[in-house]
Amino acid sequence: MIDIVKNVATASRRTKASVIRELLKVTNKPGLISFAGGLPDPELFPYDFIVDAVKEIMAKKGRVALQYGPTDGLPEFKEEFIKFLAKHEGVQAKPENLIVTTASQQALDLVGRLFIDAADPVLVELPTYMAGLQVFRSYGADFIGIKMDDDGLRTEDLEERLKWLRSQDEHYKFLYLVPDFQNPSGVTLSEAKRRRIIELSAEYAVAVIEDSPYRQIRFEGTAPKMLYRMDRETLKTDNIISLFTVSKTFAPGLRIGVILAHEQIVRKLEILKQSLDLCTSSLNQLIAAEFFRTGRFETHVAKVKKVYKAKKDAMLAALQRHMPEGVTWTKPEGGLFLWVRLPEGMSADDMFQDAIKENVAYVIGSAFHCDGSGKNTMRLNFSYATLEQIEEGVRRLGNAVKKRLVAA
Amino acid sequence: MIDIVKNVATASRRTKASVIRELLKVTNKPGLISFAGGLPDPELFPYDFIVDAVKEIMAKKGRVALQYGPTDGLPEFKEEFIKFLAKHEGVQAKPENLIVTTASQQALDLVGRLFIDAADPVLVELPTYMAGLQVFRSYGADFIGIKMDDDGLRTEDLEERLKWLRSQDEHYKFLYLVPDFQNPSGVTLSEAKRRRIIELSAEYAVAVIEDSPYRQIRFEGTAPKMLYRMDRETLKTDNIISLFTVSKTFAPGLRIGVILAHEQIVRKLEILKQSLDLCTSSLNQLIAAEFFRTGRFETHVAKVKKVYKAKKDAMLAALQRHMPEGVTWTKPEGGLFLWVRLPEGMSADDMFQDAIKENVAYVIGSAFHCDGSGKNTMRLNFSYATLEQIEEGVRRLGNAVKKRLVAA
Repeated sequence: MIDIVKNVATASRRTKASVIRELLKVTNKPGLISFAGGLPDPELFPYDFIVDAVKEIMAKKGRVALQYGPTDGLPEFKEEFIKFLAKHEGVQAKPENLIVTTASQQALDLVGRLFIDAADPVLVELPTYMAGLQVFRSYGADFIGIKMDDDGLRTEDLEERLKWLRSQDEHYKFLYLVPDFQNPSGVTLSEAKRRRIIELSAEYAVAVIEDSPYRQIRFEGTAPKMLYRMDRETLKTDNIISLFTVSKTFAPGLRIGVILAHEQIVRKLEILKQSLDLCTSSLNQLIAAEFFRTGRFETHVAKVKKVYKAKKDAMLAALQRHMPEGVTWTKPEGGLFLWVRLPEGMSADDMFQDAIKENVAYVIGSAFHCDGSGKNTMRLNFSYATLEQIEEGVRRLGNAVKKRLVAA
Repeated sequence: MIDIVKNVATASRRTKASVIRELLKVTNKPGLISFAGGLPDPELFPYDFIVDAVKEIMAKKGRVALQYGPTDGLPEFKEEFIKFLAKHEGVQAKPENLIVTTASQQALDLVGRLFIDAADPVLVELPTYMAGLQVFRSYGADFIGIKMDDDGLRTEDLEERLKWLRSQDEHYKFLYLVPDFQNPSGVTLSEAKRRRIIELSAEYAVAVIEDSPYRQIRFEGTAPKMLYRMDRETLKTDNIISLFTVSKTFAPGLRIGVILAHEQIVRKLEILKQSLDLCTSSLNQLIAAEFFRTGRFETHVAKVKKVYKAKKDAMLAALQRHMPEGVTWTKPEGGLFLWVRLPEGMSADDMFQDAIKENVAYVIGSAFHCDGSGKNTMRLNFSYATLEQIEEGVRRLGNAVKKRLVAA
């Protein structure tokens, strides 16, 4: 080991390699069908649109596109995003409620940096988004997991934990939620529970991080209101911090996201972002602005929904066909993922190598649990693989499960 | 104040708004000539190239450009950057020595996060790059400033401080350097001093951050070797971590930078970057790769150097014409900045408002000093203003200085 590597700081030692990113290295094996990643279907990317948009931007806004921009984001992008929020979410926002981020992962880092001191309790769903756990852990978060039902986290459990934290004078800071087609479980938080969470956030002065990258990818059913909107229409706690990204509705390669929050929070985030990266790519913000301005967002998302719904249905049908009794799974109304539960006592961690031998990959469910539980669960992505791969991959996965069951 | 704002973490409270970014808000005043920013000249941006490159990328690499990429950067970009390093810097690098960043500011954040625990001493030049101070301070750095001469920092002072730090069992981690046409002073570190710094880094097992965004913008004189190269050719300490960006040689709006370091350091930075933003824009990495691959880098930098040299010469001539006796300035051989020293006892901080009244702006020198010294200094940028603005702006600045001298 070279000398200076020994000098790393506590925060660096606390940051562990992402299980997914490490898994993805295994899944390069030829012939392997991977349900492990969370990648959009590249067949759908609007390649032609990018060329046209860049031509237009260079002709009219080249000096803005290639220069440094304001830390909180370009007015040109904010203007279009505000229209999107009004039209699609019924949310009235002002520019000072928005800060543009280098996609949602930077938003999570900003939130972590804003709130977390080492040993601060952070409330999360069981399971929750792994890279959220990763970044909050790097700030020294002490996780408190709240179990979920089919309509989202158990609000009675949340209340109980908040009451206890308050009684202990703990510095609890926020509840982290992925309320729509959750990554990893595919579950959506019900409107009644959203209302209750806002009440609890007021009662306990706790921020709620509404991380919703998949919300626009709804195939069926009715969308509950965003927590941010519900709060503005009812208690006006200003405790909701909402995270958006164009990674799933447009292209992750642009790295464009947005945080929507009270202007005092946005101002603090802006100061933090100055030291993180000065500003997010102006060119990419203008490309995303064009995507909204031209209405391409609507036609593109309609196409994405159609394709992903077909893939989700194919995966549900394949699970039905190939999984033995005792295996269950969620039936998400949107998003990119579903969640499989193996019979109690069976370990998806242990089965991972068998699956790789069968040439199929998934993400172990335990990686999404802050307390290491969920050993009998796994996350399957249905957006990236083709319909044929979905059928064949689930068949292979079914084989792996059946062999384990016989061996047990 | 809203409730949840009171919950901010220590790191957030330690992060102060950037003086420059706040100053820039004042400089929007109509008619004001600003030497305050550090912006490239937008007349020079290669607008046509961007359109052509994006067309080519969408045709041949669209699926890579719009998708998530590896956290450490796209192989396509690394390949071109390795060729650039060999050709222009005589540095032999492998892909595992490189990590792509969201420009240099993210590289500084990564370095801070990798090394700094609260109260760790960090060695910096007096003056040094303000946004470096800002981000290192957010991690709780305890700065130790080393004074500079016309050929860079005083290595005897550095040795003395390192000796003292070692005797105190302090956890000193790194020396932060901007060795070429330093921001803010314009000074370049001599080859002899570079050699001595490498020796000291070996003796005291201290990392050296070589932050060199302006190195390619050399108008005259001979470039000393990069510290990274010098180390590889001599002591092989592997203690040098070098930071690159395309912000000054191509376009800041892309937010593309690179860290060159020992593979063990790069691996640690990669894990940190996973939690910061997963990856840097694939599209922008491919645009930058095209810039190097097509040779546009060389022709563009040649043009930039010619224009900035003319501006630098114009600013030097204007200073000669308009500044009263007792005012001195550096004569940089490249870069974007020069450094003005007012007579001892005069305050550039106090004069700032006078200058704004004269319709000219600069950055106060004290903002670049970790110990608040340098009150009689200021940084002038010569890349952004036109030749006419440079003449007129320096005349106004000369007026402000003369009025102060008369008043004193």
